[in-house]
Amino acid sequence: MARNGRGMRVGKRFHKPGTAPGTLKAPEKRVEQVRMTVIDYGPERLEEKTVTRVQDLFPYRDSPTVTWINIDGLHDVAALEALGKHFGFHPLALEDVLNCGQRPKLEDYGEYHFMIMKSLIHGDTLQTEQISFFLGGNYVITLQEIPGDSFEAVRERIRRGKGLIRKSGPDYLAYALIDALVDEFFPVLEKFGERIETLEAQLLTDPAPETVQEVHRIKRELLLLRRTAWPERDVIAAMQREESDVIHPETQVFLRDCYDHTIQVIDMIETFRDLAAGMLDVYLSSVSNRMNEVMKVLTIISTIFIPLNFIAGVYGMNFHTDHPMNMPELDWAFGYPYVLTLMFTVAVLLVYYFRKKRWL
Amino acid sequence: MARNGRGMRVGKRFHKPGTAPGTLKAPEKRVEQVRMTVIDYGPERLEEKTVTRVQDLFPYRDSPTVTWINIDGLHDVAALEALGKHFGFHPLALEDVLNCGQRPKLEDYGEYHFMIMKSLIHGDTLQTEQISFFLGGNYVITLQEIPGDSFEAVRERIRRGKGLIRKSGPDYLAYALIDALVDEFFPVLEKFGERIETLEAQLLTDPAPETVQEVHRIKRELLLLRRTAWPERDVIAAMQREESDVIHPETQVFLRDCYDHTIQVIDMIETFRDLAAGMLDVYLSSVSNRMNEVMKVLTIISTIFIPLNFIAGVYGMNFHTDHPMNMPELDWAFGYPYVLTLMFTVAVLLVYYFRKKRWL
Amino acid sequence: MARNGRGMRVGKRFHKPGTAPGTLKAPEKRVEQVRMTVIDYGPERLEEKTVTRVQDLFPYRDSPTVTWINIDGLHDVAALEALGKHFGFHPLALEDVLNCGQRPKLEDYGEYHFMIMKSLIHGDTLQTEQISFFLGGNYVITLQEIPGDSFEAVRERIRRGKGLIRKSGPDYLAYALIDALVDEFFPVLEKFGERIETLEAQLLTDPAPETVQEVHRIKRELLLLRRTAWPERDVIAAMQREESDVIHPETQVFLRDCYDHTIQVIDMIETFRDLAAGMLDVYLSSVSNRMNEVMKVLTIISTIFIPLNFIAGVYGMNFHTDHPMNMPELDWAFGYPYVLTLMFTVAVLLVYYFRKKRWL
Amino acid sequence: MARNGRGMRVGKRFHKPGTAPGTLKAPEKRVEQVRMTVIDYGPERLEEKTVTRVQDLFPYRDSPTVTWINIDGLHDVAALEALGKHFGFHPLALEDVLNCGQRPKLEDYGEYHFMIMKSLIHGDTLQTEQISFFLGGNYVITLQEIPGDSFEAVRERIRRGKGLIRKSGPDYLAYALIDALVDEFFPVLEKFGERIETLEAQLLTDPAPETVQEVHRIKRELLLLRRTAWPERDVIAAMQREESDVIHPETQVFLRDCYDHTIQVIDMIETFRDLAAGMLDVYLSSVSNRMNEVMKVLTIISTIFIPLNFIAGVYGMNFHTDHPMNMPELDWAFGYPYVLTLMFTVAVLLVYYFRKKRWL
Amino acid sequence: MARNGRGMRVGKRFHKPGTAPGTLKAPEKRVEQVRMTVIDYGPERLEEKTVTRVQDLFPYRDSPTVTWINIDGLHDVAALEALGKHFGFHPLALEDVLNCGQRPKLEDYGEYHFMIMKSLIHGDTLQTEQISFFLGGNYVITLQEIPGDSFEAVRERIRRGKGLIRKSGPDYLAYALIDALVDEFFPVLEKFGERIETLEAQLLTDPAPETVQEVHRIKRELLLLRRTAWPERDVIAAMQREESDVIHPETQVFLRDCYDHTIQVIDMIETFRDLAAGMLDVYLSSVSNRMNEVMKVLTIISTIFIPLNFIAGVYGMNFHTDHPMNMPELDWAFGYPYVLTLMFTVAVLLVYYFRKKRWL
Repeated sequence: MARNGRGMRVGKRFHKPGTAPGTLKAPEKRVEQVRMTVIDYGPERLEEKTVTRVQDLFPYRDSPTVTWINIDGLHDVAALEALGKHFGFHPLALEDVLNCGQRPKLEDYGEYHFMIMKSLIHGDTLQTEQISFFLGGNYVITLQEIPGDSFEAVRERIRRGKGLIRKSGPDYLAYALIDALVDEFFPVLEKFGERIETLEAQLLTDPAPETVQEVHRIKRELLLLRRTAWPERDVIAAMQREESDVIHPETQVFLRDCYDHTIQVIDMIETFRDLAAGMLDVYLSSVSNRMNEVMKVLTIISTIFIPLNFIAGVYGMNFHTDHPMNMPELDWAFGYPYVLTLMFTVAVLLVYYFRKKRWL
Repeated sequence: MARNGRGMRVGKRFHKPGTAPGTLKAPEKRVEQVRMTVIDYGPERLEEKTVTRVQDLFPYRDSPTVTWINIDGLHDVAALEALGKHFGFHPLALEDVLNCGQRPKLEDYGEYHFMIMKSLIHGDTLQTEQISFFLGGNYVITLQEIPGDSFEAVRERIRRGKGLIRKSGPDYLAYALIDALVDEFFPVLEKFGERIETLEAQLLTDPAPETVQEVHRIKRELLLLRRTAWPERDVIAAMQREESDVIHPETQVFLRDCYDHTIQVIDMIETFRDLAAGMLDVYLSSVSNRMNEVMKVLTIISTIFIPLNFIAGVYGMNFHTDHPMNMPELDWAFGYPYVLTLMFTVAVLLVYYFRKKRWL
Repeated sequence: MARNGRGMRVGKRFHKPGTAPGTLKAPEKRVEQVRMTVIDYGPERLEEKTVTRVQDLFPYRDSPTVTWINIDGLHDVAALEALGKHFGFHPLALEDVLNCGQRPKLEDYGEYHFMIMKSLIHGDTLQTEQISFFLGGNYVITLQEIPGDSFEAVRERIRRGKGLIRKSGPDYLAYALIDALVDEFFPVLEKFGERIETLEAQLLTDPAPETVQEVHRIKRELLLLRRTAWPERDVIAAMQREESDVIHPETQVFLRDCYDHTIQVIDMIETFRDLAAGMLDVYLSSVSNRMNEVMKVLTIISTIFIPLNFIAGVYGMNFHTDHPMNMPELDWAFGYPYVLTLMFTVAVLLVYYFRKKRWL
Repeated sequence: MARNGRGMRVGKRFHKPGTAPGTLKAPEKRVEQVRMTVIDYGPERLEEKTVTRVQDLFPYRDSPTVTWINIDGLHDVAALEALGKHFGFHPLALEDVLNCGQRPKLEDYGEYHFMIMKSLIHGDTLQTEQISFFLGGNYVITLQEIPGDSFEAVRERIRRGKGLIRKSGPDYLAYALIDALVDEFFPVLEKFGERIETLEAQLLTDPAPETVQEVHRIKRELLLLRRTAWPERDVIAAMQREESDVIHPETQVFLRDCYDHTIQVIDMIETFRDLAAGMLDVYLSSVSNRMNEVMKVLTIISTIFIPLNFIAGVYGMNFHTDHPMNMPELDWAFGYPYVLTLMFTVAVLLVYYFRKKRWL
Repeated sequence: MARNGRGMRVGKRFHKPGTAPGTLKAPEKRVEQVRMTVIDYGPERLEEKTVTRVQDLFPYRDSPTVTWINIDGLHDVAALEALGKHFGFHPLALEDVLNCGQRPKLEDYGEYHFMIMKSLIHGDTLQTEQISFFLGGNYVITLQEIPGDSFEAVRERIRRGKGLIRKSGPDYLAYALIDALVDEFFPVLEKFGERIETLEAQLLTDPAPETVQEVHRIKRELLLLRRTAWPERDVIAAMQREESDVIHPETQVFLRDCYDHTIQVIDMIETFRDLAAGMLDVYLSSVSNRMNEVMKVLTIISTIFIPLNFIAGVYGMNFHTDHPMNMPELDWAFGYPYVLTLMFTVAVLLVYYFRKKRWL
């Protein structure tokens, strides 16, 4: 998997060219054990359990209540294939679930929708993890490579039964989960705001090469965020526009709100990009100012001393002074004071000249 | 709240990811006391008062006259919730009222419109304050964190009863308020024009690093203005396009005028951005010209004196002149004048060479 | 009024924020006397006169012939208000007439069209003057702050009665006037072409800082032209698309021609902008080449003389040569020739080295 | 006529502003004699002749066969006016024929189409020549200022009667002529490809200021090509979309092919522009690398010799060594070897330091 | 054929301008022998053979089964002409087959579709090879200049009869082949990811001019990929949108998946371009940092030693000390220690000054 030096994954996992479409290939194993949890709920009812066999999930396809199945770990291809077969998922969709590194997208398969979204993981470096959604008439299935805590707050809201979530359908649940993913951007961007603020202060007071490296790292991470946020916006816009059996009109207004959040996120990302680009300009002009100051000092010191050295050099010549034309100054009673005065005068004139030229 | 070094707020206030939509959270308290004022008017009637309890506002929902309720200070969440409940506002709209830092937007909730606009605050640094509008069939409600004087002129026009305002509906009032906000851009941009003019003169006569910092500050503040003006243009365009019970055809022509103003504002912002970008170029070429001049002087002085120093150095060597081949010049009667002439000739030739090369 | 350093007006005249829309405020007085001229014509008829009272213009509203009223000087607000009242102009349109610095635009008020165009004034610096048009079923009213000669040729065509102008309606007259304004761009752009040509030659042969200032001035004036030409194109496109009582189909083909001219103008402006941007690149590379040449000479002269100076310095040391190890060279019969040879050899080797490195 | 330094015409010939539309003004005379040739053909018939009087062309307007009239030289305005009158051409179209320097365009005048295209002339510098087309139901008239050989191949195809040309109508002929003009781009672009290839090699091995001038020339010529190719694409797209009496469905597929060629041309132009822009980057980094290398040598040589010179200078001081504290080294038996060793050690340490810093 | 220095073909093969459309011209011979292979299959049937005469292919036009004809080598124009005649292909399509260097495109000729796609060849440098497709109701014909292994996996899938391919029509086959071509991008992009990663590491630790050359090579190859991927995306989008006899609804979902892949490819290309552009910035700031460090050392060493040298020079002057005012220091008992102390003090003060200025 192509990653650039700081953990930004740039590719998708791919098959050998020419592989039949819908061929399922297990991704790298990133959790020890596939973990399948079910939350089945209605206004009055709540069942939460962890199952070990994929077959235990099958009955929920036709249950009248809303079911949310979450699967952490994708390496058990056989189980996923069985699940896909039972729920009637298209092989291409399942292939996309396994080939992590997809762009966020929404695909309408009629009876169910298939969505890909991203979860932000902010460890040492910023990374994204793919989360796949199947949204049917009475279920939401979410799949991810490693367990994340993005959905914990939603789970809690279901448990407590506050708000609309227990009274609404799976489309509202899907909205709630997607909204949780979109909201993950805000603390990350907050942190970017602080990093940019710190960097700008540093650039003005003490521009170091490391600061530039940091600016570039920020630019790259913003690139990653941008690549994530734009297609997510499209996904949510497509969900909002559509009126189907799967997504109900009542959910539209919430999706519009969620769409506004993505717009907000993109707006912040673009602003940060502009600020980061401006910072490089600040850095370069700051460095060149500093360089100029250094150069000026060199110029001035050299330029003042060069003629003085020349004078000293002249009177250091060994012409024989017994010839009256040969450096009679050496024999003057006040030769030394004269030459010191000469040197001082030259220096003063040069300083005056530089002052006049405003170089000093 | 993420602010960058000079007071430009880059984020929005956000909930913890996963919080239920419509959850109201009090913003930071920025005024001591929530202040609620009501102006209820018609062609013949004018009532203006300040209320202390939110319940006193409720009767105005169904009054036949036009009512403008202005609320300064948003930290009393309970009151806002009560207000929202009574007027039937959507919880997501109320959430946006409290989460300041939203982008300007227009949301059509059927019976009422919800708008977010920005007021410009030009203290030491340029800032924006969010102003939320609820526009119903017979009322306008405006909400802001801190009291501002953006609306004072409109209030005065209502009091005096001149113009159309007393004869028109709440949509005209909303137009008048929004127009007042858009017009706030012009004095700000005027000031930008003057700052840019001053800076350009400085850049040509005396380019200092501080000037560049100032150019960057202007660029950032223009970025903020731009982020404000573009979505406000969209809000007004959306209002103008729409014909509904809430916005009447007679108000459209005024909204078109207001739309023209936003176009004008954006045009000026983009021009200033171009000018600011050009100024950096001017600065860089100005600095590099100055640097070149300094370098030229160094080059020329060094290059002229280096061979002279060399000559002086040669005749400063201590070879024993009793050997006839060893520096017989030292013993010449006119050795010193000869060497001075030689030095002068070399200097003249070098100056001539530099002149010919057009370096001097 | 915000003007930047070289006469480019960047703002519009604006009211205090919150002023009632349609409030008329006299602009700065720029002519001594408001001058109102009327040309009333038909295929067979021509009347041309100058009136002093605005009331003398009123009868032309309902005359069956085509009337062109031109007003130079806008400070007599009362007269304009009376005129607007009689002809039924919207207060917002009149406000735009007075608030010079508007963008070119077309507004359809049903019975009449209101247009804003720009006239180019090329004195020492390039400026634009706003010209407002009211185009009704049988009249054209043009208003401008100061008298210009943009329309003299059209006036002459009416007087001579050649071409279509006397046989056509006010829409053709409006076309002819707008076309005259668009054609003003061509000589201005011609002059830009020559300035750019001259500058390019200068940049290659003798790049001076002043040349860059001139390039920047050109860039700014092109910015102004661009800001004028683009919305004028939109105005003419809108006129051409529309088929109404005010603009007749026969005039469309002429408007298409005029539209082509604006496209041509924009095309030239964009080309000049590209050329001007390219010129800065040429300048910078030209300056850096020159700098490099200077640096090379410095490097080479220094680098050659530094070791020679060192040698001279060594033999200028005062070690007592009575110790046989102390600088026996000083006592050699051919010490001086030897050291000169040594110096010459070092110089030759260094020149050879620089040649090989292709630095010379 | 504004031309910039290297023969790129940037303007159009223009009338004095305010001139009546449709006024015909003779362009500069660029051929001695107007040359009018007629090719009249059908599947079975071919007549080719040169006429001297414009009246001889009139009968072809109503001939049942396809007629191609080519006119080289535009200064005989009277003849063109007569031609236009007889064939019923709009004065604005004729004006565009004479005002060379127009952008390529297609104008639908109902019974006939008027098109402007460009022919590429690749002498010392790249130039374009305007070619005007009138395409009617049974004729094509082409007009150009100077005779070119762009159409010779088409003429030959008509003469030989191979392919579809003799069997098709004037729209196919127009297609064939336009296709010939579009195909002229390919050898020109081929040459650009070679020039760019050569330049890139030069930039890497031997970056000279002249190379940059050449890059800029290429950029400018590409700008000219671009300004030509884009509107020609639009012309052909418009012809292809339209189904009228003038252009028949059978010709559409050929126009689609021709459209593909313009796309190809534009694609190549844009690629070359990207490459040329990249070349400037290569040049600048190449120059700055070279500069760095030069600076490094200067730094190192200076930095090594400066302390050595200082040591030599110290022992060149004339303190009287009869005082025991005054430079006793001068009296040491091994003073000279000692000082040489000291110098050598300093030099070695400095070289080692620079090596360690990776500056050498 | 124009190729730039590193094998990126920038042109298309072109005829002499004016050549009749549909003229077939043999391309350069790049394989010894034209190779024609046929795979004719159905759910139950599979026939695979190599034919030598083009006439052997004719019967397959009307066979009820799906036929895939692959032709490697395009120089046998007569055979292609015969094939085209028999299958009814338009001469313009055949011309495009031979004129390699076309952009990817889809042309709908009613009974059959003609497509141009590209195969990536990653030898020493990245190149593309044109592959032409004819897709009819019961056949797919693919043509390429040189045999490639892009299709081997598809051939294998047909042979094994796994998946849908044997059960589907020629549109599915065309999809499978196009998908194989699109999938070729992924390993190439993977390699780009690794090269970029390596380069970034190098730029930070050891920025060499060669690294920049490599960055530029990557930029150019990405330009080539981009020019290939964008029109291929358009081809696939056009296929997906269309519902015709040639492309069946069942294949649409697969084309959508393939379209997603091209989006993914383009996304990666654009990201790499951004990264490559960022790398140049990193390089330049890295180089200028290094330069600054070098300059600082030069400045400091020079600036410290220049005054010391001056002092040494002064006491190296030969004034006759018998005059009491002439350099009495030379006669001091502690003159030498005094001057060494003076030098040391000056050096310490300068170092202290530079430290304070933060230049050291």
